[in-house]
Amino acid sequence: MSEAAQTLDGWYALHDFRTIDWNAWKSASAEERDEALAGLQELIAGWEAVEESKEGSLALYAIVGQKADLVFMHLRETLEELNAIENAFNRSAFARFTHKAYSYVSVVELSNYMGQPGVDPMQVPEIAARLKPILPKSNHICFYPMNKRRMLQDNWYMLPMEDRKSMMRSHGMIGRSYAGKVKQIITGSVGFDDWEWGVTLFADDALQFKKLVYEMRFDEVSARYGEFGPFYVGNKLTRESLADMFS
Amino acid sequence: MSEAAQTLDGWYALHDFRTIDWNAWKSASAEERDEALAGLQELIAGWEAVEESKEGSLALYAIVGQKADLVFMHLRETLEELNAIENAFNRSAFARFTHKAYSYVSVVELSNYMGQPGVDPMQVPEIAARLKPILPKSNHICFYPMNKRRMLQDNWYMLPMEDRKSMMRSHGMIGRSYAGKVKQIITGSVGFDDWEWGVTLFADDALQFKKLVYEMRFDEVSARYGEFGPFYVGNKLTRESLADMFS
Amino acid sequence: MSEAAQTLDGWYALHDFRTIDWNAWKSASAEERDEALAGLQELIAGWEAVEESKEGSLALYAIVGQKADLVFMHLRETLEELNAIENAFNRSAFARFTHKAYSYVSVVELSNYMGQPGVDPMQVPEIAARLKPILPKSNHICFYPMNKRRMLQDNWYMLPMEDRKSMMRSHGMIGRSYAGKVKQIITGSVGFDDWEWGVTLFADDALQFKKLVYEMRFDEVSARYGEFGPFYVGNKLTRESLADMFS
Amino acid sequence: MSEAAQTLDGWYALHDFRTIDWNAWKSASAEERDEALAGLQELIAGWEAVEESKEGSLALYAIVGQKADLVFMHLRETLEELNAIENAFNRSAFARFTHKAYSYVSVVELSNYMGQPGVDPMQVPEIAARLKPILPKSNHICFYPMNKRRMLQDNWYMLPMEDRKSMMRSHGMIGRSYAGKVKQIITGSVGFDDWEWGVTLFADDALQFKKLVYEMRFDEVSARYGEFGPFYVGNKLTRESLADMFS
Amino acid sequence: MSEAAQTLDGWYALHDFRTIDWNAWKSASAEERDEALAGLQELIAGWEAVEESKEGSLALYAIVGQKADLVFMHLRETLEELNAIENAFNRSAFARFTHKAYSYVSVVELSNYMGQPGVDPMQVPEIAARLKPILPKSNHICFYPMNKRRMLQDNWYMLPMEDRKSMMRSHGMIGRSYAGKVKQIITGSVGFDDWEWGVTLFADDALQFKKLVYEMRFDEVSARYGEFGPFYVGNKLTRESLADMFS
Repeated sequence: MSEAAQTLDGWYALHDFRTIDWNAWKSASAEERDEALAGLQELIAGWEAVEESKEGSLALYAIVGQKADLVFMHLRETLEELNAIENAFNRSAFARFTHKAYSYVSVVELSNYMGQPGVDPMQVPEIAARLKPILPKSNHICFYPMNKRRMLQDNWYMLPMEDRKSMMRSHGMIGRSYAGKVKQIITGSVGFDDWEWGVTLFADDALQFKKLVYEMRFDEVSARYGEFGPFYVGNKLTRESLADMFS
Repeated sequence: MSEAAQTLDGWYALHDFRTIDWNAWKSASAEERDEALAGLQELIAGWEAVEESKEGSLALYAIVGQKADLVFMHLRETLEELNAIENAFNRSAFARFTHKAYSYVSVVELSNYMGQPGVDPMQVPEIAARLKPILPKSNHICFYPMNKRRMLQDNWYMLPMEDRKSMMRSHGMIGRSYAGKVKQIITGSVGFDDWEWGVTLFADDALQFKKLVYEMRFDEVSARYGEFGPFYVGNKLTRESLADMFS
Repeated sequence: MSEAAQTLDGWYALHDFRTIDWNAWKSASAEERDEALAGLQELIAGWEAVEESKEGSLALYAIVGQKADLVFMHLRETLEELNAIENAFNRSAFARFTHKAYSYVSVVELSNYMGQPGVDPMQVPEIAARLKPILPKSNHICFYPMNKRRMLQDNWYMLPMEDRKSMMRSHGMIGRSYAGKVKQIITGSVGFDDWEWGVTLFADDALQFKKLVYEMRFDEVSARYGEFGPFYVGNKLTRESLADMFS
Repeated sequence: MSEAAQTLDGWYALHDFRTIDWNAWKSASAEERDEALAGLQELIAGWEAVEESKEGSLALYAIVGQKADLVFMHLRETLEELNAIENAFNRSAFARFTHKAYSYVSVVELSNYMGQPGVDPMQVPEIAARLKPILPKSNHICFYPMNKRRMLQDNWYMLPMEDRKSMMRSHGMIGRSYAGKVKQIITGSVGFDDWEWGVTLFADDALQFKKLVYEMRFDEVSARYGEFGPFYVGNKLTRESLADMFS
Repeated sequence: MSEAAQTLDGWYALHDFRTIDWNAWKSASAEERDEALAGLQELIAGWEAVEESKEGSLALYAIVGQKADLVFMHLRETLEELNAIENAFNRSAFARFTHKAYSYVSVVELSNYMGQPGVDPMQVPEIAARLKPILPKSNHICFYPMNKRRMLQDNWYMLPMEDRKSMMRSHGMIGRSYAGKVKQIITGSVGFDDWEWGVTLFADDALQFKKLVYEMRFDEVSARYGEFGPFYVGNKLTRESLADMFS
């Protein structure tokens, strides 16, 4: 048996992708639409207040392409809070104009492959902050889930810890070379959703997503051991641009 | 031909995942909603009475994310009783506000890999109780189906019994190290549903699901031989919180 | 080129899985429901008459879980008769309360791997009867489609006939050890549907399905060469229990 | 780089599978149904006129099982004509009573693996006729798409031309042994649809489809290199039996 | 770690596939249809004006087969502009008569495998023009997404740069041999959509798509390392033929 990597776990995450039912929207009355939008803005204001009190965070983006129209990425201390957010949204008047598109349940995670011996990572303030992060307000988001492969001789989970550690270190160096351009939030989803991790990237220049992910694909960790799910890319929605979208 | 492992089989299980049709719910009258909720509470009360008489068991949880909103996990002596439960639900007024999301048919199973020679397992009261278990009332549930892999040289079913036994023993030790934190119910579904087993975990701290499943993934049984289906995670629903959800 | 196994082929089979639209059912008037049920009972009576005249056979079961609610398994001499059955069902009043769930088109098949040299199998009355069988009235049904694998070194179709014959003989011995407990109907579907065979099992004790399929999974034919599709399990429906289900 | 096989290409093909919306049909008035059927018969009459003038061909069959109810297989000189056929159908009154079920876009193709050196195949009248065929009026149709496999050591496209040629020759001999029983139309779909070829078989005895495809499966070309999509099997529909189906 | 290929990136691309809801269309009034078509023509006129000012480009084709009815391929400088196009379409009256069918988000990309040492590719005017191309007005379009394979020993991303470069050079030579017959636009989608690249081909003779893609399939880059998604093929739609289609 191979030694399991230790992880540090922070806030729970719900990525909630929604599709707009434009036919229902267009056949609604002006009053119904006003009420729906006002209700949505109220929900968002509430979620922003939670973020201000550092008890959670929200990212809201418009997805490009037909897979979804909107993504709400929520961070919270508990699964119960995430469930309450879902229920509040589902019971809102705006929800009637949306369909479910995709969701992902995970928890903010820092892998301990890079841990220093003799240092308690929870005592490092930068690490504690990364476990309960306020989500960036970048122009663009990119989300995809992934697995580490277990296929015959390409089996990540059968590798010795040392090999995994050294590969993850080189992998992390690619990520660090994008510092200032791309911010990564890794969330673990083993036991929570269908892939092992979710990767959420934020950048002001969307092209950096492609450069980063493509460069990583030549790294052995991704090349031999990475399996990737669907990719979603989106543009920042402010409360103002959201109102424009539905006006 | 490799020797088949013996299994002990107990109650049949139906995991019944449902999605709420919130549009229908919101456009129903207060009377219709009251009637639907009352009917649901009556069904639940009946299922709880069966549990009290030790003729079955029920677990009811709210699922996080879009895959489903609710799961009813039922245990019963026969498939006919499970079918009757489905029919009673489908004919209820509440059913009109739900869509099917996913289901799983299996039977509570204890593998005999850990059997002691010369001991009739059915005479061990703890084993008999585990075959017809009253489901825990923990804060969280996790469900996923799985297969043992049959892929070229990684073929579980071609391994000698001794190898399987020794791997399952080390696997079981991981599970036991979570005693008091995670309770596992293994159900066998060969011949009943699309995967070979269902795994249902219960814990008060949902993070323990991730820790357990992740640690096991480095164990050879999972690393080389495990194939995993969709994962569902949820929060305990009492009859009171259920009423709140729909108020 | 490897020598193809000879098969003997009997009646064509249609497994017709249907889901009930309970919302439509509940919003129908008592008259509409009575008419629909009467029409269904009339169809079934007609199919039973065909069975009595030995020109076909019918098995009707309630499926457990959400994959379907009912399965009608029909055997007939020709594909045209199966198509006529589909059309009669689709045009019936009852069909309005159902959705398609799954279907399978195949033909009752006896493999000749066990053939005796110098014996014409069609002259063996037991074989002729097995090609045009009256379906058992057991308490439970289990259906799944399957393929023989063609994956690199695990390629059934590249094996010499002698190896296939000897493996199938040992495989058949497992099946025979369940005589009196499980009755198997093998139907071939190469050229007719998406898998190569359909397997339909009948038993009074549903647990025997699990025991049989699990034991076979350790046999090389299944362990190395079997690929399995979805599994359906159900409970016997009489005309009376069918009426109860919809009352 | 391996030498590409040369192909000869004839008429474009559209296999258009449709499902009947029986609920809509049953709730339509007699006038609506008469109009819809008359319009469909008119479309078919027009397509048959094209066939009589040798500018295309039509095969119309009822599909057995739930995958579809009808298939229209059209052959035409151009993709524009196929598109015009789709539009004419979609705009017809009958189309309202159908749903899309599956389609396949390809072009009638003769592989040149069997080519004779020094012979221009287009000068062989039998070959020219096979590229623009009038579809048989057999009792049954069978359609399936397929790929040649590219999986590690089982990679058709990496084989030397000579090996492919010799395997295709032996493969073709199986097909020829069914002359008079099964007529094959091979259509190429690389660049047009999701598989590399479509195979359409016609026979008066549907059992011959199973015998042919099963026998071929033991041939190395299929056993090692064939990957198969969904299979559809159907019964001949005349304009009269079509009218009966909807009466 | 293998050296990543450098890419040059130009305009963002959105392939927007739509299915017509013919039932809704036929039940709309003449006024509604006129308004919808006029609105669509206005949108197209706006997109053509953008193309004339060299700030983007549009290709509009009718798809053959049931996968979709129309494809709008849009090129723009930013993801925000593509999102605005989606919103404008979704809010138009015409959108009510369509369903989403498929979409693809990517960016026009030139691989630098063929780069000359010491030459800055952005200074080559032909290259700059290819990064922001005006889409051809050919009779036919072909679109498919693809990956480079990472499967055990057939792992593109583990190959040395020199091997990849030499294989891509031979691959490019096949493409160049179709100069004047087929125009290719390669778009990169790593980080943007579910496959790594999109390939869009334009030709006046659709058969050239098949010849090109089939010939390439025997080239090692495709034979061993290519994985292909769904294929879409279509016919040019002018504003006039579009009006005819809906008249």
